[in-house]
Amino acid sequence: MTRQTPIIAPSILAADFARLGEDTAAVLAAGADWVHFDVMDNHYVPNLTIGPMVLQSLRKYGIAAPIDVHLMVKPVDRIVPDFARAGASLISFHPEASEHVDRTLGLIKESGCQAGLVFNPATPLDYLDYVMDKLDLILIMSVNPGFGGQKFIPGTLEKLREARQRIDASGRAIRLEVDGGVTAENIGAIAAAGADTFVAGSAIFHAKDYRAEIAAMRKAIG
Amino acid sequence: MTRQTPIIAPSILAADFARLGEDTAAVLAAGADWVHFDVMDNHYVPNLTIGPMVLQSLRKYGIAAPIDVHLMVKPVDRIVPDFARAGASLISFHPEASEHVDRTLGLIKESGCQAGLVFNPATPLDYLDYVMDKLDLILIMSVNPGFGGQKFIPGTLEKLREARQRIDASGRAIRLEVDGGVTAENIGAIAAAGADTFVAGSAIFHAKDYRAEIAAMRKAIG
Amino acid sequence: MTRQTPIIAPSILAADFARLGEDTAAVLAAGADWVHFDVMDNHYVPNLTIGPMVLQSLRKYGIAAPIDVHLMVKPVDRIVPDFARAGASLISFHPEASEHVDRTLGLIKESGCQAGLVFNPATPLDYLDYVMDKLDLILIMSVNPGFGGQKFIPGTLEKLREARQRIDASGRAIRLEVDGGVTAENIGAIAAAGADTFVAGSAIFHAKDYRAEIAAMRKAIG
Amino acid sequence: MTRQTPIIAPSILAADFARLGEDTAAVLAAGADWVHFDVMDNHYVPNLTIGPMVLQSLRKYGIAAPIDVHLMVKPVDRIVPDFARAGASLISFHPEASEHVDRTLGLIKESGCQAGLVFNPATPLDYLDYVMDKLDLILIMSVNPGFGGQKFIPGTLEKLREARQRIDASGRAIRLEVDGGVTAENIGAIAAAGADTFVAGSAIFHAKDYRAEIAAMRKAIG
Amino acid sequence: MTRQTPIIAPSILAADFARLGEDTAAVLAAGADWVHFDVMDNHYVPNLTIGPMVLQSLRKYGIAAPIDVHLMVKPVDRIVPDFARAGASLISFHPEASEHVDRTLGLIKESGCQAGLVFNPATPLDYLDYVMDKLDLILIMSVNPGFGGQKFIPGTLEKLREARQRIDASGRAIRLEVDGGVTAENIGAIAAAGADTFVAGSAIFHAKDYRAEIAAMRKAIG
Amino acid sequence: MTRQTPIIAPSILAADFARLGEDTAAVLAAGADWVHFDVMDNHYVPNLTIGPMVLQSLRKYGIAAPIDVHLMVKPVDRIVPDFARAGASLISFHPEASEHVDRTLGLIKESGCQAGLVFNPATPLDYLDYVMDKLDLILIMSVNPGFGGQKFIPGTLEKLREARQRIDASGRAIRLEVDGGVTAENIGAIAAAGADTFVAGSAIFHAKDYRAEIAAMRKAIG
Repeated sequence: MTRQTPIIAPSILAADFARLGEDTAAVLAAGADWVHFDVMDNHYVPNLTIGPMVLQSLRKYGIAAPIDVHLMVKPVDRIVPDFARAGASLISFHPEASEHVDRTLGLIKESGCQAGLVFNPATPLDYLDYVMDKLDLILIMSVNPGFGGQKFIPGTLEKLREARQRIDASGRAIRLEVDGGVTAENIGAIAAAGADTFVAGSAIFHAKDYRAEIAAMRKAIG
Repeated sequence: MTRQTPIIAPSILAADFARLGEDTAAVLAAGADWVHFDVMDNHYVPNLTIGPMVLQSLRKYGIAAPIDVHLMVKPVDRIVPDFARAGASLISFHPEASEHVDRTLGLIKESGCQAGLVFNPATPLDYLDYVMDKLDLILIMSVNPGFGGQKFIPGTLEKLREARQRIDASGRAIRLEVDGGVTAENIGAIAAAGADTFVAGSAIFHAKDYRAEIAAMRKAIG
Repeated sequence: MTRQTPIIAPSILAADFARLGEDTAAVLAAGADWVHFDVMDNHYVPNLTIGPMVLQSLRKYGIAAPIDVHLMVKPVDRIVPDFARAGASLISFHPEASEHVDRTLGLIKESGCQAGLVFNPATPLDYLDYVMDKLDLILIMSVNPGFGGQKFIPGTLEKLREARQRIDASGRAIRLEVDGGVTAENIGAIAAAGADTFVAGSAIFHAKDYRAEIAAMRKAIG
Repeated sequence: MTRQTPIIAPSILAADFARLGEDTAAVLAAGADWVHFDVMDNHYVPNLTIGPMVLQSLRKYGIAAPIDVHLMVKPVDRIVPDFARAGASLISFHPEASEHVDRTLGLIKESGCQAGLVFNPATPLDYLDYVMDKLDLILIMSVNPGFGGQKFIPGTLEKLREARQRIDASGRAIRLEVDGGVTAENIGAIAAAGADTFVAGSAIFHAKDYRAEIAAMRKAIG
Repeated sequence: MTRQTPIIAPSILAADFARLGEDTAAVLAAGADWVHFDVMDNHYVPNLTIGPMVLQSLRKYGIAAPIDVHLMVKPVDRIVPDFARAGASLISFHPEASEHVDRTLGLIKESGCQAGLVFNPATPLDYLDYVMDKLDLILIMSVNPGFGGQKFIPGTLEKLREARQRIDASGRAIRLEVDGGVTAENIGAIAAAGADTFVAGSAIFHAKDYRAEIAAMRKAIG
Repeated sequence: MTRQTPIIAPSILAADFARLGEDTAAVLAAGADWVHFDVMDNHYVPNLTIGPMVLQSLRKYGIAAPIDVHLMVKPVDRIVPDFARAGASLISFHPEASEHVDRTLGLIKESGCQAGLVFNPATPLDYLDYVMDKLDLILIMSVNPGFGGQKFIPGTLEKLREARQRIDASGRAIRLEVDGGVTAENIGAIAAAGADTFVAGSAIFHAKDYRAEIAAMRKAIG
């Protein structure tokens, strides 16, 4: 099966929140494809970040690129319509955080967004067994969400290969995203393991030159 | 007892999150005294707003005014040190949201911040009975927190008078803050009922001229 | 202040659920004024009873009398519109079961129902301090809700007197309801303490003659 | 392995709650085998239906058929003995809703009932790995429980085939039940996929003729 | 009203758990009256201490003195019978930790124990309004439970005086206990404020001579 | 792969808590290898046992053997550092009890302890799929934790064989522990199924002669 075009999705958690419109526009102008939007509720993870009002302000500012919302919240359903109304393009969530995974996927789609499932480093892939026909994206976490200062967990490469096999077997155009510790140094191996959508936070936003960093990543993906 | 100098504290929930540094600086330059920072966790209230990273970005941007954090979160304790480290000046919380109110007040103080208690419209003032010596601020909600489009609840005036009596009886310099539906039209009556610290969101940020609106409020306070 | 007309509200928890329409119609034909509808969710109390679909079936059956819904559920807000749509006339809830009591009262009213607050035997009346202008009914529990086989708690009489004083001081037409262990023997004393709305379950539904029992209660009220 | 006799189990959620005894007796007289009893607690699913007292009233009314209780509640254990005492024949629950699945199965059996596990549309079958020797029934949901107006999810057929393989491999007489969107049109394909026990709500109770509808289902099962 | 005989109740949280029988017997032999048994569940307070099995082992060891169990757990009801069976004499709990305070008090009594309510430093005394006739003890916390290294909160003296007034007004023999930072230095003032039952942990168990310390406390009480 | 030396780990839940230091020392002197320390929080399981202070007292008493802490608590993370500081050697937890299993394993290791995962009787082994490189121990429960008076569940033998295969395939020195109903009669079969670490409570502590019982177990292991 032919692989989809690679997507670079900078996580705005590493952007400057005092100048979020400007910083987001800059990273897109420098070649990024999507905006990755990390939502934490201080319950599912021990941190609280940004919600629908912040997303909406980016749309009003003129950000037109796809916004890829990763919900690190529990429960999930109540806030889905808020993000859809605010302008989200894709909403993904953790299967452990919803009592009714199929229903939550349906709710996201009915709200007009694409839908994804996110897997914590230790979470088995069995949650995929009966939902492949409802997914637009699978996000494999390569660090533990909601905790700072972590490195890419090496075992993620094997997990990406297994997820890739499931996607290829399904015959569907489901994106395989990876998030956590992705850099220009390891992105080549990550792509080789099957990922086609790459979240990077500090690697891009803390780089001196967004454009050069994104270009280096694209080159390494090959 | 002499009343403290009035404080105008615009709620940045009504600011433009895409240009938060600039908008916050503008409202301060226009005469505002404090920055009011509304934190919602999608559990204590059905909304999720902004967390410590956003506050920290304001400090890095150069905002030096007091930042008055209103936690609409439950439970409270875990996130207090995060906000203190991020640069909060004052942290207030709802007594129903902490199992150990005295302990949470102590934790805020040990973290180097001033401490406040917030009262929902229907919450009795008895929670004040044994904590007056630990408070820097009492915040009386004049709308229900976390729900949009509400008007100032008229019964709040009588509740402000009762809170004012408790403060005066204590002989302590505790600020009496009010939040919800405050405008240049009703701020005079609110001040007359005993409030000395005034949160206003859309009334200021949606005004054509921040300076004129803040000036009108100050004039009405008298 | 003149007292309102007494209301007898049989609790259908004691009715025959296999013939609920017929049994409810019979008790109304025998002189009852309202239908009292006890909702338990196995969380706020250790029992699960009946929900909106059962209420709706009574309306479809032709029951036109006011249906007075007592929610023994926590949290409260999500299920309020369901009961309003199903045909509830009045919805009351426990203040400890809602984080935002004023908001829940508003939600009930916006849904087109009257609103009440319920007090457990040990719950103080302070929850009434700032909501009298939003109440249509105060329900004083004279047994612990959700537990069977209990007798009327004698201290309830004094609590009813205090609630009556608050109602009279407000100048509002708020009904004062009592629920738990009410019989023709003690209903006179209960009415004398200030109650004007009387829930009775087994005393009515387990009586040989509904009409005679209700008549005996009315006579005792005087 | 020889398949068990097909069972038709109408869900009384679609019956007339004002005449529940009569309506249940009618559907059994029309050829139904079991009564399916759906319990929702407004926590595990966003609805609240009927509890043990309603079940008990059916037994008192004279309903002698097996009553198959599907608990959409979380947690599970506290309410199990209540349903057993009220007259349940079989109690099934969702494995995600109990911290101790093996213990809950044991508790149901000790209470004198048969025991089942229920699988939401997205729930993997791995929960069956170590409990086959304790099960009398496996219920595969073909819609999301607790949400109205849904159609039979097509992927359920493959899931039924996998569950059937597990049952056959175990050599045990475990019933394979399906619930959600079952009609006379699709019941043949569902039976062919391995189901032997069929829940139908509106398809039966909203039919003009219960007997004709049940007969049509039986004929389609073949 | 005449005050009851003072009771010294050492908290075995400060004892040596490796020699708990011996250490408890020693403190009783040195003049202590009761054993105070602090139970924490890592939910109501951030610590986990000891449960019913430890209490039972003290009874088997031969400890015959009253054992006064302070439950810092939430919820309360499930564990009450466990402690009663294990040999507790008195069980007290926090009103915020039980949805049904009156019911929990009844449950303790039905289990054959005396019952008490505990007040955190910031908790108002209104919870006493309708339960005085069911109480054997009121425990006023003079530190925050579950957190180490705290000093006696001075405002407790005034709160003790108010609790004493309520007890005297009730005409009932309810003990007034205090817990937290009690020493031979401040116990005189505490007794003067109305307390008659004194918990002390490290002040006694970390003293060189249990007997001397207890004697010093008794002398200071006067 | 060569099997590791068998370990006998008596559960001190069956010891005499009034003489815990002495009883623990006795069982070690009689030939036990580890101390198994069962922590229950009355939330994850319906019982509350012993916490960090009790563990610490054993270290102060002079117990130097490895202490193997089994956390039957939910959530897990907050209490991990408490047990590490108190002197735990190994800490294991249930994967269902932590939202972030990989993170909790990391936290235990950073705290200086070895880390394990515990599987309830019905819990599938898939939780092992992506964490084998972080584990020092896998504990297979052969009874339901937190409930008394249970016998060894026979199906555990097959589950042990599957866990053993996973360990051998990993090539890592991960211990395979079993807990629940282990006796000198069945320990041989259990060892043959792949276990190398054996928890026994009453079988050892209620034996007349600890040394003889432990010796009988070792002999049966072979």
